[in-house]
Amino acid sequence: MKLLNDTISKIEKIDGSFAVETKRRLDNLTKPLGSLGRLEDLALQVVEITRLKNPQLKNKVIFTFAGDHGVTQEGVSAYPKEVTPQMVYNFLRGGAGINVLARHVGARVVIADLGVAVDLEPDPQLIIKKVGLGTQNMAQGPAMTKEQAIESIENGIAIFEQEFKNGIDIAATGEMGIGNTTAASAITSVITGQPVEKVTGKGTGIDDKTLEKKMVVIKKAINTNKPDPKNGIDVLMKVGGYEIGGLTGVILAASARRVPIVIDGFISSAAALIAVTIEPKCKDYMIASHFSVERGHRIAWEYLGLKPILDLNLRLGEGTGAALAIGIVEAGVKILNEMATFEAAGVSEKNA
Amino acid sequence: MKLLNDTISKIEKIDGSFAVETKRRLDNLTKPLGSLGRLEDLALQVVEITRLKNPQLKNKVIFTFAGDHGVTQEGVSAYPKEVTPQMVYNFLRGGAGINVLARHVGARVVIADLGVAVDLEPDPQLIIKKVGLGTQNMAQGPAMTKEQAIESIENGIAIFEQEFKNGIDIAATGEMGIGNTTAASAITSVITGQPVEKVTGKGTGIDDKTLEKKMVVIKKAINTNKPDPKNGIDVLMKVGGYEIGGLTGVILAASARRVPIVIDGFISSAAALIAVTIEPKCKDYMIASHFSVERGHRIAWEYLGLKPILDLNLRLGEGTGAALAIGIVEAGVKILNEMATFEAAGVSEKNA
Repeated sequence: MKLLNDTISKIEKIDGSFAVETKRRLDNLTKPLGSLGRLEDLALQVVEITRLKNPQLKNKVIFTFAGDHGVTQEGVSAYPKEVTPQMVYNFLRGGAGINVLARHVGARVVIADLGVAVDLEPDPQLIIKKVGLGTQNMAQGPAMTKEQAIESIENGIAIFEQEFKNGIDIAATGEMGIGNTTAASAITSVITGQPVEKVTGKGTGIDDKTLEKKMVVIKKAINTNKPDPKNGIDVLMKVGGYEIGGLTGVILAASARRVPIVIDGFISSAAALIAVTIEPKCKDYMIASHFSVERGHRIAWEYLGLKPILDLNLRLGEGTGAALAIGIVEAGVKILNEMATFEAAGVSEKNA
Repeated sequence: MKLLNDTISKIEKIDGSFAVETKRRLDNLTKPLGSLGRLEDLALQVVEITRLKNPQLKNKVIFTFAGDHGVTQEGVSAYPKEVTPQMVYNFLRGGAGINVLARHVGARVVIADLGVAVDLEPDPQLIIKKVGLGTQNMAQGPAMTKEQAIESIENGIAIFEQEFKNGIDIAATGEMGIGNTTAASAITSVITGQPVEKVTGKGTGIDDKTLEKKMVVIKKAINTNKPDPKNGIDVLMKVGGYEIGGLTGVILAASARRVPIVIDGFISSAAALIAVTIEPKCKDYMIASHFSVERGHRIAWEYLGLKPILDLNLRLGEGTGAALAIGIVEAGVKILNEMATFEAAGVSEKNA
């Protein structure tokens, strides 16, 4: 609990002290006022977070965490849970979607096992920070103990802190875990107060009948465990997952280090909901990557008050949407750093 | 007229013969079916256009054309027309938005003067293909002669063909020309049949009073010249611009060479409207980059039946939105080329 409390205590409010000067610089660049829209907003946000006038996004790091979910016993997923470890090996060999897109934007991927249900083969690229061999079935009782919830968050913080030594200018969340849209829907319903029907989707591709069952299971999990919406750790413990807790830790740690943190898909937004429930100030450090096909994602973004950068019908997770969004954020930062001003370029300004 | 007719005659219909195999390959990659949404669609489109199973987008070329507009005499712009040549020099020095974003996605920018109102200083990077020293004032009569309209299109084709010798795997349009949203609104109104009010916006940032005047001027130009909506060259001649004609040529030439062509902002979409009016088959070669703030842009996309990739509140032009979109298209192509299959990665497929 000490690592978590120390991290929370370091998260500062964004005070806006860089806003006026940065806006003035953006307005002096050779373009009509505000004509680069969202790119300008993103550049400003990165300056405010980092307190650097000319931030460089050299070290881009995507944290892709894996964990299994006891609730898969209820038959809520389209894929067998063996896919979780299989996909971790795919990540390690560089063949998954996140590997391709991370390479595309020049990001490195940090792969960690927060709670896969089997022991994975050691690999120099794989961080093992297992909290358990998969969570318990949340339809029957809490997904984990309170100690495990805290441990998963602190493991995420520790992984971030270890990687921070190698440099992180921008971070992103990503995950893999068969069954984790079920947990994410439960978390989103509890924290936002929206009915289960509105935040539950087809995940990796279940049919309508399985979707019905998935909703029944989520309702049962919420009714059985009665998580406290105001208590992020309680929600994580009762209806969460180890990889989700790990990502909550990454979000808190990034905020404490004043590193912009790009939130990926629906499961990542559930981790973000837990993070803001624990410490609301971390919201200002978040950048929403995209609108997922998964219906609860929009509700999570609305609750967080974040406007996603992209809308590309993605629903893969792993950090794939966040990787693409990093490319756009970097474009915004380069606009700020590299464009000529009216004066330097000898370009006339607007008619009076 | 021969170069234009030859180019048009080479544009083939996309026949879909690569669709089944490419979809099968995308479906075999280690991800839930269709879960990379738009990225998969874009990869498929590039395969169908190029007829390459594994297209490589190594040579990315953005054609940024400049031209002046006689209609600026009517006071429809926020900036003086001197800004057109000043911005060309800014492009040549690498300080403009398009330079920054092209570098970001690894594209080269081809800068050409299709009709700036002054003679520009020679520069090894600047292609001079002037059709005239700015167009005539379309509120008083045709913007150019029929011969000039054809010349502007053929100049665009010639510039594309010259650059094609250096390799082009994906192309994009971009432009600079004070007054050219006025021409683009007129073109969009004529070709789509929508009223001037629905397709006219604030361009680089005019006030409400100037916007009123701009609409009056556009209506006058259309009523005076009576362009034939079914005749792209007639529309270009009467209410178009030299840089717009040049981009029409680039779009037709790219289609003839089976090169995907990314359409940038509102002025580029007006060039696309002229291109499909001349040869409807070129539509399949187009990729819509983004939704501009400029209101007519949505109407142009709807008419073209294209769905933009991005929505970032941009309204700069130059090719900036297209540059960002190229980054997303390339991501899609890399997914197709680089992701592991279920079989190769030893990942279990979906439950039966």
